[in-house]
Amino acid sequence: MTMRKIAESTVRRLSLYLRCLEGFEAQGLDTVSSDVLAARGGTTSAQVRKDLSFFGSFGKRGLGYSVRELEGELRTILGLGRRYRVAVIGAGKIGSALVQYPGFSQRGFDIVAIFDADAQKVGRAWNGLNVRNVRELDQALREEPADIVVIVTPGEVAQSMADRCVALGVKAILNFAPIQLQVPEDVVVKHVNLALEFETLTFALKNR
Amino acid sequence: MTMRKIAESTVRRLSLYLRCLEGFEAQGLDTVSSDVLAARGGTTSAQVRKDLSFFGSFGKRGLGYSVRELEGELRTILGLGRRYRVAVIGAGKIGSALVQYPGFSQRGFDIVAIFDADAQKVGRAWNGLNVRNVRELDQALREEPADIVVIVTPGEVAQSMADRCVALGVKAILNFAPIQLQVPEDVVVKHVNLALEFETLTFALKNR
Repeated sequence: MTMRKIAESTVRRLSLYLRCLEGFEAQGLDTVSSDVLAARGGTTSAQVRKDLSFFGSFGKRGLGYSVRELEGELRTILGLGRRYRVAVIGAGKIGSALVQYPGFSQRGFDIVAIFDADAQKVGRAWNGLNVRNVRELDQALREEPADIVVIVTPGEVAQSMADRCVALGVKAILNFAPIQLQVPEDVVVKHVNLALEFETLTFALKNR
Repeated sequence: MTMRKIAESTVRRLSLYLRCLEGFEAQGLDTVSSDVLAARGGTTSAQVRKDLSFFGSFGKRGLGYSVRELEGELRTILGLGRRYRVAVIGAGKIGSALVQYPGFSQRGFDIVAIFDADAQKVGRAWNGLNVRNVRELDQALREEPADIVVIVTPGEVAQSMADRCVALGVKAILNFAPIQLQVPEDVVVKHVNLALEFETLTFALKNR
């Protein structure tokens, strides 16, 4: 079994199970059944068992899963057993929301640099970081490599930013720009498009 | 064939094709091949033809698709042939980014009301709208119904906000809060979780 074959929808559910487990641990629960995880994750207990079975054997029949153990396993599976250095290109509203969101650092994501092309924004303090001129991007990433780059620029410049990051060895990009980035096969891109999220809603409204 | 069976990944690609076509139209192109659409949409021409075949017969062998015609068809399929009234609950950074994003109104989404529970935010002007007290939500939506509600609140209150919206007849919710909302079957919920997007990246980094 190769991990490559795991569907993104499965990975998303694993993330949701992890969130539920964190809540259960905070409430002092030791074990949890697949039924309860399913109800909180918006799926069925059969789906929970199937999702977890991809990664080995968890839980005991009739006893459920150990909250703490499953939490640890899911963190490992999701690659959350370490911290990640994140650089943000584009100091707009979305970038600002990310930088100020305490959940990111809690979950292991450290925003280490922010870049913008707008002279008005360069030099401003953002949550303890100064916005840097995007001209310094190559030098900055060479000196302090980033594990993940978030691109929040206009569509016209997003591909050239991605190209620069890829040339500097970046292997993971979260793209908010409204274009499909072209990257080599060994680079992972996740495209977040808020207008597109609205369109999956309007499609559903129209076609139900 | 029921529309219900169309996978969300297909709908997302249709949205991307539409974006490409809009770009081609702006460049003055009359026709486009499935190869070109595929390259711009990050997929294969076979996939483009398959995606479009769900909805009828488009294009002519050897001639490609008419840019303008396919654009119109995709708008209709995606439910973009009309305008939508959008209410936002939670006047934080993400809400602010949505309200100020010109692309939304261009694509037919009109943000008609913003609500917050924070007295410091209530009454502030946001892009021509005043932030309203969330206590007024029920009355406001009764007077001026919203087609889509965007929930950008803390997780603890998101479900109660969703319940109120559902009771008021809202059929589509875009949820940014970090919980899985429980809603009746006839309500569509799309969950956007930015931390979760990062976790699909870390999973891919760890498991490739």
